[in-house]
Amino acid sequence: MTIPTTATPPSDKALVPFVSVDHMMQIVHQIGLAQVLRDLTRYIEDDFKRWPSFDKTPRVASHSDVGVIELMPTSDGESYGFKYVNGHPRNTADGLQTVTAFGLLADVATGYPVLLSEMTLLTALRTAATSALAARYLAPKGSTCMAMIGNGAQSEFQILAMQAVLGITHIRLYDTDPESSRKCAENLAQSTLNIRICDTPQDAVQGAQIITTCTADKRNARVLTDNMVGSGVHINAIGGDCPGKTELAADILHRSEIFVEYPEQTRIEGEIQQLTPDHPVTELWQVISGAATGRQNDRHVTLFDSVGFAIEDFSALRYLRDVVAQTGLFLPLDMLADPDDPKDLYGMLKRAAPKP
Amino acid sequence: MTIPTTATPPSDKALVPFVSVDHMMQIVHQIGLAQVLRDLTRYIEDDFKRWPSFDKTPRVASHSDVGVIELMPTSDGESYGFKYVNGHPRNTADGLQTVTAFGLLADVATGYPVLLSEMTLLTALRTAATSALAARYLAPKGSTCMAMIGNGAQSEFQILAMQAVLGITHIRLYDTDPESSRKCAENLAQSTLNIRICDTPQDAVQGAQIITTCTADKRNARVLTDNMVGSGVHINAIGGDCPGKTELAADILHRSEIFVEYPEQTRIEGEIQQLTPDHPVTELWQVISGAATGRQNDRHVTLFDSVGFAIEDFSALRYLRDVVAQTGLFLPLDMLADPDDPKDLYGMLKRAAPKP
Repeated sequence: MTIPTTATPPSDKALVPFVSVDHMMQIVHQIGLAQVLRDLTRYIEDDFKRWPSFDKTPRVASHSDVGVIELMPTSDGESYGFKYVNGHPRNTADGLQTVTAFGLLADVATGYPVLLSEMTLLTALRTAATSALAARYLAPKGSTCMAMIGNGAQSEFQILAMQAVLGITHIRLYDTDPESSRKCAENLAQSTLNIRICDTPQDAVQGAQIITTCTADKRNARVLTDNMVGSGVHINAIGGDCPGKTELAADILHRSEIFVEYPEQTRIEGEIQQLTPDHPVTELWQVISGAATGRQNDRHVTLFDSVGFAIEDFSALRYLRDVVAQTGLFLPLDMLADPDDPKDLYGMLKRAAPKP
Repeated sequence: MTIPTTATPPSDKALVPFVSVDHMMQIVHQIGLAQVLRDLTRYIEDDFKRWPSFDKTPRVASHSDVGVIELMPTSDGESYGFKYVNGHPRNTADGLQTVTAFGLLADVATGYPVLLSEMTLLTALRTAATSALAARYLAPKGSTCMAMIGNGAQSEFQILAMQAVLGITHIRLYDTDPESSRKCAENLAQSTLNIRICDTPQDAVQGAQIITTCTADKRNARVLTDNMVGSGVHINAIGGDCPGKTELAADILHRSEIFVEYPEQTRIEGEIQQLTPDHPVTELWQVISGAATGRQNDRHVTLFDSVGFAIEDFSALRYLRDVVAQTGLFLPLDMLADPDDPKDLYGMLKRAAPKP
């Protein structure tokens, strides 16, 4: 008989399921990426429909000269979730990700965490699913072609979500760095998508019913200018997501119906930071729940000014919790002290002393 | 040669050191609890001395009928730390901890996490170290006897910190539940402390230069009444830490010199929620940095109205990071996606597909 170094191994209550990056990738491959994107869209849609039942607060940001670290909490009264996410545009120069993230889901009744997960991949997935969800409500019916402006880390996910959820068949790529476009096209070579790399953004938007912008420069860029946006188009603007970082010329905003996640946050971080604080916008959840109208006719320009919101992460964590229970792809993490007697934390420590 | 299921194992950049509850206990036993408490006191003291260099914000709380979940972030411009902590008084009835916690330290320059740790034990340790630090500046010189009112999960740590840092030799225990006092006395039986269990709080405070209150009921309790507090005493009030939860009769507050961590938070959560918002208090960091006077004479009653602040957790995480590097007692956690090319997150996912 061996003598354990700790008197009592941690009980189930002390163990939090942890989904690593490797587990997340295995989960995606086991379920299939298109199915994951469709599932996530459904979970996000369900949560947007019950939007008023969530505790909402703008993210808690800690800014520095080189980037930002944010905590994004929310709760539906039953579960509590938050995401840790950074944004450091210069990181790529050192071979690091611009954005990394992890998140946690907890039980409101006990305060005990029930899931810890990597969220760099999961954020890319939920961002793409949210875009596809918005496009399903806002893009012209029967859209088949999307222009993808900015072909970085998020681009393939955006494209595949639009394919999985909307049935998009044609993709037109543009990036200031042609190497990024080649990488994107190559990654998607085995899809059934018809993909074309374009030399200019003007060329990329030709014939596209949906224009997705997802560029990374932290400045007031003009990725799209007014003359590039024809009537009836849906713009899915992803890249403008912090003060001083926008992608669209203001002229476009003035002739668009604008849809946002959470106005309090979008007016600070989104494209509409260029507009007056009282410029009319529609909250996406109201369209999804039927309280507001989305696209009104075939000639309107609709704009989803997306900055990402905590409820989308909550939906993603909720989905992952359900999936993890089925797949078993997680590591039980000894993260919570769980003494036999809750009043006897010291006793637990004492009994863990190495035997002399 | 075996074919790995993922094309590339995660690089060092993707791995975050994680300190489990078991690792934390091993670390404490390896270094020695008294030494850990002294070390933590020094780290907290160092950070209190440079208090103005920290980003400070009241904790971000999500309240429910049965408890609260909080995020406590702070940054010194070089490192960023936050703690997740819950408070659920009714948890003990179900064999769960009232308070569980975990925390994270990150590099401000890159936004990358550098340490994830359990913090239920670490919070107990840092709370005790903070109390001892405050008492070193505020308690009468040569204090030898402490009354410990409330003998729950925090009590042994409070007592051992006062012994390790101040040289306290005599302890007088009181709890409404005598079983808790017996547990506490038994846990400390092998210490060199002279310990006495008392039948009443009046009895417990007899001859004590330091009175520590650490009770758990969520209500405006009167653990200490005015007649129980003689001149020259230092009160270390730990248990009042949220709106509606206090331990001291207001009379005591009116004849005490009051010291707090962060007034913006203590006025909401501490004993001083009973006083007018302009009642004078002194910030502990000012005493420690020499900018304000602590105890002025032998007859004054000093009160450390402690609610716990993010900088104490930051100090504890900073200490743990230094210790973990020496002891190697951690688990490398595959928490951050780290593609070879930061722009090619999808490529990383694709290459992780199971081989057909």
